[in-house]
Amino acid sequence: MYFADRIDRLSSETAFSVLAKAKKLEAQGKEIIHLEIGQPDFDTPQNIKDAAIKALQEGKTGYCPTTGVHELKETVAQETSRTRKISVDPDQVVITPGAKPIMFFTILALVNEGDEVMYPNPGFPIYESLIRFVKAKPIPYPLIEEKGFSFDADEFISLVSEKTRLIILNSPQNPTGGIISPEDLEVVARVASERNIMVLSDEIYRRLIYDKTFSSIASIGDMMDRTVILDGFSKTFAMTGWRLGYGVMPVELAKKIELLQVNSNSCAPTFTQYGGIEALTGDQSAMHEMVASFKERRDIVVKGWNAIDGISCIVPEGAFYAFPNVTQLNIDPQAFADLLINEYGVALLTGSSFGQYGKGYLRISYANSIENLQKGLDRIRRAISDHNLV
Amino acid sequence: MYFADRIDRLSSETAFSVLAKAKKLEAQGKEIIHLEIGQPDFDTPQNIKDAAIKALQEGKTGYCPTTGVHELKETVAQETSRTRKISVDPDQVVITPGAKPIMFFTILALVNEGDEVMYPNPGFPIYESLIRFVKAKPIPYPLIEEKGFSFDADEFISLVSEKTRLIILNSPQNPTGGIISPEDLEVVARVASERNIMVLSDEIYRRLIYDKTFSSIASIGDMMDRTVILDGFSKTFAMTGWRLGYGVMPVELAKKIELLQVNSNSCAPTFTQYGGIEALTGDQSAMHEMVASFKERRDIVVKGWNAIDGISCIVPEGAFYAFPNVTQLNIDPQAFADLLINEYGVALLTGSSFGQYGKGYLRISYANSIENLQKGLDRIRRAISDHNLV
Repeated sequence: MYFADRIDRLSSETAFSVLAKAKKLEAQGKEIIHLEIGQPDFDTPQNIKDAAIKALQEGKTGYCPTTGVHELKETVAQETSRTRKISVDPDQVVITPGAKPIMFFTILALVNEGDEVMYPNPGFPIYESLIRFVKAKPIPYPLIEEKGFSFDADEFISLVSEKTRLIILNSPQNPTGGIISPEDLEVVARVASERNIMVLSDEIYRRLIYDKTFSSIASIGDMMDRTVILDGFSKTFAMTGWRLGYGVMPVELAKKIELLQVNSNSCAPTFTQYGGIEALTGDQSAMHEMVASFKERRDIVVKGWNAIDGISCIVPEGAFYAFPNVTQLNIDPQAFADLLINEYGVALLTGSSFGQYGKGYLRISYANSIENLQKGLDRIRRAISDHNLV
Repeated sequence: MYFADRIDRLSSETAFSVLAKAKKLEAQGKEIIHLEIGQPDFDTPQNIKDAAIKALQEGKTGYCPTTGVHELKETVAQETSRTRKISVDPDQVVITPGAKPIMFFTILALVNEGDEVMYPNPGFPIYESLIRFVKAKPIPYPLIEEKGFSFDADEFISLVSEKTRLIILNSPQNPTGGIISPEDLEVVARVASERNIMVLSDEIYRRLIYDKTFSSIASIGDMMDRTVILDGFSKTFAMTGWRLGYGVMPVELAKKIELLQVNSNSCAPTFTQYGGIEALTGDQSAMHEMVASFKERRDIVVKGWNAIDGISCIVPEGAFYAFPNVTQLNIDPQAFADLLINEYGVALLTGSSFGQYGKGYLRISYANSIENLQKGLDRIRRAISDHNLV
């Protein structure tokens, strides 16, 4: 069987393949500590479940409009207006099955073959995959540990060209847990405005921020005219399996994204969108508890990793990832990751799964119990000691 | 703002724009009879809702594997094996958010720029839209009223070329309600095998068949090696708003579709898939009642339309659409449809919304109450009489 050329330009997420390997080892009776997969270990709060169940029982089982249930679009518009300090209309909102379609559709709608797209590296691997899918040129901008995993402004500006069509931002970030400072966002806003470049701002982790406050590029001047905000329910409300996300964007672009949605999936499920309304407008205490719990775990994990000889780990400001530097170990990071899963039952990802500038790091997700996080740390310490890796 | 070239090659579904117009008229206080939209007017059966609610309450709220919950994939494999009389493995199954992604992904995975794709005309408008999207050449094969809206075998064969990469089949059909006979399926199977052509068989209406029995091209010889069966829950189980569908295909292709799903939507929602398992394995009586009800309505609608001077309507064998011929009326079908919605409050679609070979027809969905269907017929009779259209 032969396939269309474009398929070979796509790549996958290493997190899923490592998860699959971990599951296979578990099936063989091994106990695995999961530090690889980026989803909360909590269940969805009950009030959100109840709202979806109510809608289902009431017969909200038919198609909704392509861009979503109007009440949810209004809620998202209000929430986005409030949190980004801008004025958003429901017509700017497109509800999608998970937030990933916003990446896929934005790139399909905006980027022609030969265009250049700037994206964070290390970064979520699907960015580069989708850029290649449309035969555009991926231009990675390095995220730098010394800058708290933001970028160097001069280097960033030097990568912009006549052909730059889109800049992808992600803050708080996967995989580093870093955030981009308001000053750095200003740099991006200035260059995007001057050069007429669109921005895809992946803000899926925006509520998972611990010591600082969240900043969106959409809040700067008239940047909302050239920004697609990607947001959703998965990470904040423990709703990854619901597949409910959204984009907020200029109306003109929303119409194109609507057309892509008509052609690819019709709409997001109808009754689950009522769960989304409850998530944004209902009791927020379960969400705040989850965020507090992630912060507690972060502190334990960072302290634990830094106590290991040969490893250093800066304090991640957001998301639920830490990105320890393992360049002082005398083992290649991929070999170390393989050793950890095969001999010590710890599943995690290498930084280079997130691009060339992630080399020398590991990514761990701390969306796991404190007990398991401690167990993982113990095993890693043992692996380093057993194999004389420092 | 400017967009990628590919966006201009997409088109929409007229059903959604006519529905939007109808809703606007309703908001102005007009009473509209909806014969435009292709979804059951029933609610999802309670046992299916209960299964999804149970899964939600039990915390099935995290990601599932990209290609779906394994238990649902097994169920679909068994169901497909049984109903198509072939042997299907769960690895051949990809669960998607609605069945539309199967169209989108199949075309993205198989069809290169410049390839030719044969598709039914009149037919579901998204086929042609997606063919154009990937810069392939759409080759419509006419469906002919005299053949019960199947195709002419000689004409079909004459349209096949060296460049034909994919043939799209849809039976029972939208918009005609016609089915493709086993003999005609044999023609397609022969030409596909001889010429190494893949087949996308859209079988979403397969249970909605009234006097005959369903035939799938996948049941012929080794056709499953080159066929993608598109199926789902929306039409049969009144689950359009759930967005739950699937494809059954060769394993090699399933891996590519998995890659597309990783890059675009991660997976179908997890807890709703347990509703899918119940739909296929649980009590089928609600589904049988719905099918019986559609048959009753079909008979009323066909009789009613044929009793109108200037209109003839063959008996549709399946789906919930009738496709009356209005060429004897002295008014253009689009003008007639506009007159009906604007002055008589009847929303329906013209045949040409489904392609050039649909010209001279109307499409009505009879997924509506008998009372409304009768009201619609009365209004249409009145429109023809008021305006001397015969």
